Amino acid sequence: MRQTAIQPTRDEDYAEWYQQVVKAAELAEPSPVRGCMVIKPWGYAIWENIQKHLDRMFKETGHQNAYFPLFIPLEFLRREAQHVEGFAKECAVVTHHRLEVNEDGELVPAAPLEEPLIVRPTSETIIGEMFSRWVQSYRDLPLLINQWANVVRWEMRTRMFLRTTEFLWQEGHTAHATAAEAQEEALRMLDVYERFARDFMAMPVVKGEKTERERFPGAVRTYTIEAMMQDRRALQAGTSHFLGQNFARASNIRFLDRSGKLEYAWTTSWGVSTRLVGGLVMTHSDDDGLVLPPVLAPRQVVILPVIHKQEVAVKVNEACDRLASELRQRRYGGEALRVEVDRRDLRGGEKMWSWVKKGVPLRVEIGPRDLEKGVVTVYRRDRSPREKEVVGRGEFLSRIESVLDEIQERIWDRAHAFLRENTVTVSTRDELKEFFGDPGQAGQRQGGFALCWWNGSAEDEERLQEELGVTVRCILFDQEGEGPCLMTGRSAQHRVIIARAY
Amino acid sequence: MRQTAIQPTRDEDYAEWYQQVVKAAELAEPSPVRGCMVIKPWGYAIWENIQKHLDRMFKETGHQNAYFPLFIPLEFLRREAQHVEGFAKECAVVTHHRLEVNEDGELVPAAPLEEPLIVRPTSETIIGEMFSRWVQSYRDLPLLINQWANVVRWEMRTRMFLRTTEFLWQEGHTAHATAAEAQEEALRMLDVYERFARDFMAMPVVKGEKTERERFPGAVRTYTIEAMMQDRRALQAGTSHFLGQNFARASNIRFLDRSGKLEYAWTTSWGVSTRLVGGLVMTHSDDDGLVLPPVLAPRQVVILPVIHKQEVAVKVNEACDRLASELRQRRYGGEALRVEVDRRDLRGGEKMWSWVKKGVPLRVEIGPRDLEKGVVTVYRRDRSPREKEVVGRGEFLSRIESVLDEIQERIWDRAHAFLRENTVTVSTRDELKEFFGDPGQAGQRQGGFALCWWNGSAEDEERLQEELGVTVRCILFDQEGEGPCLMTGRSAQHRVIIARAY
Repeated sequence: MRQTAIQPTRDEDYAEWYQQVVKAAELAEPSPVRGCMVIKPWGYAIWENIQKHLDRMFKETGHQNAYFPLFIPLEFLRREAQHVEGFAKECAVVTHHRLEVNEDGELVPAAPLEEPLIVRPTSETIIGEMFSRWVQSYRDLPLLINQWANVVRWEMRTRMFLRTTEFLWQEGHTAHATAAEAQEEALRMLDVYERFARDFMAMPVVKGEKTERERFPGAVRTYTIEAMMQDRRALQAGTSHFLGQNFARASNIRFLDRSGKLEYAWTTSWGVSTRLVGGLVMTHSDDDGLVLPPVLAPRQVVILPVIHKQEVAVKVNEACDRLASELRQRRYGGEALRVEVDRRDLRGGEKMWSWVKKGVPLRVEIGPRDLEKGVVTVYRRDRSPREKEVVGRGEFLSRIESVLDEIQERIWDRAHAFLRENTVTVSTRDELKEFFGDPGQAGQRQGGFALCWWNGSAEDEERLQEELGVTVRCILFDQEGEGPCLMTGRSAQHRVIIARAY
Repeated sequence: MRQTAIQPTRDEDYAEWYQQVVKAAELAEPSPVRGCMVIKPWGYAIWENIQKHLDRMFKETGHQNAYFPLFIPLEFLRREAQHVEGFAKECAVVTHHRLEVNEDGELVPAAPLEEPLIVRPTSETIIGEMFSRWVQSYRDLPLLINQWANVVRWEMRTRMFLRTTEFLWQEGHTAHATAAEAQEEALRMLDVYERFARDFMAMPVVKGEKTERERFPGAVRTYTIEAMMQDRRALQAGTSHFLGQNFARASNIRFLDRSGKLEYAWTTSWGVSTRLVGGLVMTHSDDDGLVLPPVLAPRQVVILPVIHKQEVAVKVNEACDRLASELRQRRYGGEALRVEVDRRDLRGGEKMWSWVKKGVPLRVEIGPRDLEKGVVTVYRRDRSPREKEVVGRGEFLSRIESVLDEIQERIWDRAHAFLRENTVTVSTRDELKEFFGDPGQAGQRQGGFALCWWNGSAEDEERLQEELGVTVRCILFDQEGEGPCLMTGRSAQHRVIIARAY
């Protein structure tokens, strides 16, 4: 067997494989600041593409972007009891606004703030305060706002993209005149997330509602999309919250309704983050590195001039540039095709593998013989790195969109099949135990999504987590029929997905 | 004289006029966090348009975006002596990473950090640290990175957009193999800023170099673009710094050159911020509110249905929608035209004035009579709010791009003429004093840009600031000849712009 570009392989050590893919693809690297990463150009370009498409979808559903302060006064956070409890343990707190050199020549904080500020872990409270100023009458509703921002949660165990102290995200915040409208909004945005995961990330997800135990602090209902990574663990990829009137009460968001009565508004919030980049990596990548869905790839095509003798260099380079510029005239996913000619002074093997590891969907090689024959040599990232196809230049150009579509579909199909194959109906706790194995010695690729009837309590969930290291990921929508609850044996009307999770 | 939509007028109280325009146009409002503003959807949409075009220009000049941590370890900041001195007085310092309820039931900071972190006021030091890891050989250079981010400087006196504790900006950071290349880069990006100000903001600027006193802390040379606001004060609208090897030494950014020698790299940094939105407001707006350059306007056209009788509502509304959708097929500045039909349930006057105050370039009214005649009634924001033009629907559609171009040019011409008229050659200190008047009783619209021969010292600048409240804004490029220095009387080879500034 050939040596893979990523060491270890997924089978050998999945967690370490993930870190190595992130590194080899130059997506991000650790920073000198505890728990914070640096997102490198290739990783950031993927995030920019994610942002661009999501932003369009938010605007198409009537939302407007705005920007609110990074800092939140302590007093705001405590207005909602569950909310402060949920976030107090992981807040970065600003206490001073100056540095001074002390007697020992050390640079130390000076000028203490009268009231400490926290760096936003999420913005419900500060945005709620502004909403309370903006909303007076039913005519001001619905108020549909989104913010692209950085947030900070002081996590003890961090992992690149999946859980970092600072991360980038969007947070939607909306206020409505009725519970029904707010509820509808929360579900609408969950659908947007599901659609985005499917059409852009090629990442299948399961939609559902969180149990009380897993709910966002302060929410009435939390909805989620859960994706399955290649180690069969669940990744919570996006959440949408129906907040009821909890935050409206906390922030005093009130409006005069049509009958002239003063009412609290109903609010929602919803967000996805740079965690999605981690999800992308773990959904599609293989033992040679990243595999990118064409619509989100920073480059869809990379052209490598093959030059063994200096005499042919000019001609080959020109041909590469010409092909690149013709490709850039074409559109894919509503935008100009993103193409790069790689002229770096590197050995051919090193150069080729760098693009394999970065997950570029199509590599094209052009050498003097290809020129003579009017062909190009094409490698697809969804196939083996050495599997080539020699096609006529004209044919390559005319078929480029359908080839990219094919790759997008193929990686979706693979991920979808994987999710289906590893989602198993489980009826008893013994079966569940067998399905997941011992958490201490759990095989890296054991388990999956266990589909179970459920009417258990928060204590039951606690027990499951302790015994098997698993959690209830979500309660599925639209379940028909009923069955005996996994935990209590009593008849349950809901089915849930149970899994190990990131 | 009719009452203006903004009270007071520019003549009555320029500073207050500015705040009222920002408020009336719904650009931003103060937040409960000291010195931080909330950027509202209309203001944020302008910023998004600024970002979009600048980002394209950065990418066209070979830069890539990346993202670095919000927090900077204290130790990093102090590596460059002038840098820490420049920023220590205005740093937000994070000292704890947890909140706890104390014995008195108060929520207080807990879990002190071993080493405090500062919230980035700018990122030279943390990015320098990463560059030192990324740069090994001349092959890794130039390294051309840009970051879109929020930064925090604890300013004592804040003013919306112009000076806020937190603001949004972009910061370019590059490393080069030679001084000449870094120098060239710093000037290239200054040109990009000038071009952006001209072609998108319709804001004329003067380019030049800062004196030592006004230099960025740690820079060898700071270049600037300075715009003139309508009160004749200067606004520093963008800066670009040649950092020499100062930060490379501080962060140990070294590379093996072609001859195998280990050398420090040469670095630059450059940035513009949400301050540009303030500059936009103060360059073009009038006593009726904001005036927007069409290429940056969130909406270029607003269509107002004129419905006096319910019978005509359906027909008029349909006609408005049809026009809007035909307009949206057209492109302006490389993008689909941004058009809104305003059906809000408001009195006509209120509705119309809301768009005047928001600065929308074209307002179009359509009523039943217009429909019969096949015409539309058009109001241009660069003219008086009531000055209308009735034009055939077809003609309006076919001429829309050129009308918008005309508005863009016209506001440029006005601003350019204003800058020219208020830039005056000044030869002596007495003339200078007369030009600017007494700083205590300075007329709001007195002064301008004083063009003076200069070889003064930092002390001379200090004196000017104390006596007249003015500063040297920049040393002009490419000055020929020489003349007697304003301060010393000795022969000087440079001319400078002296002005009151924001």
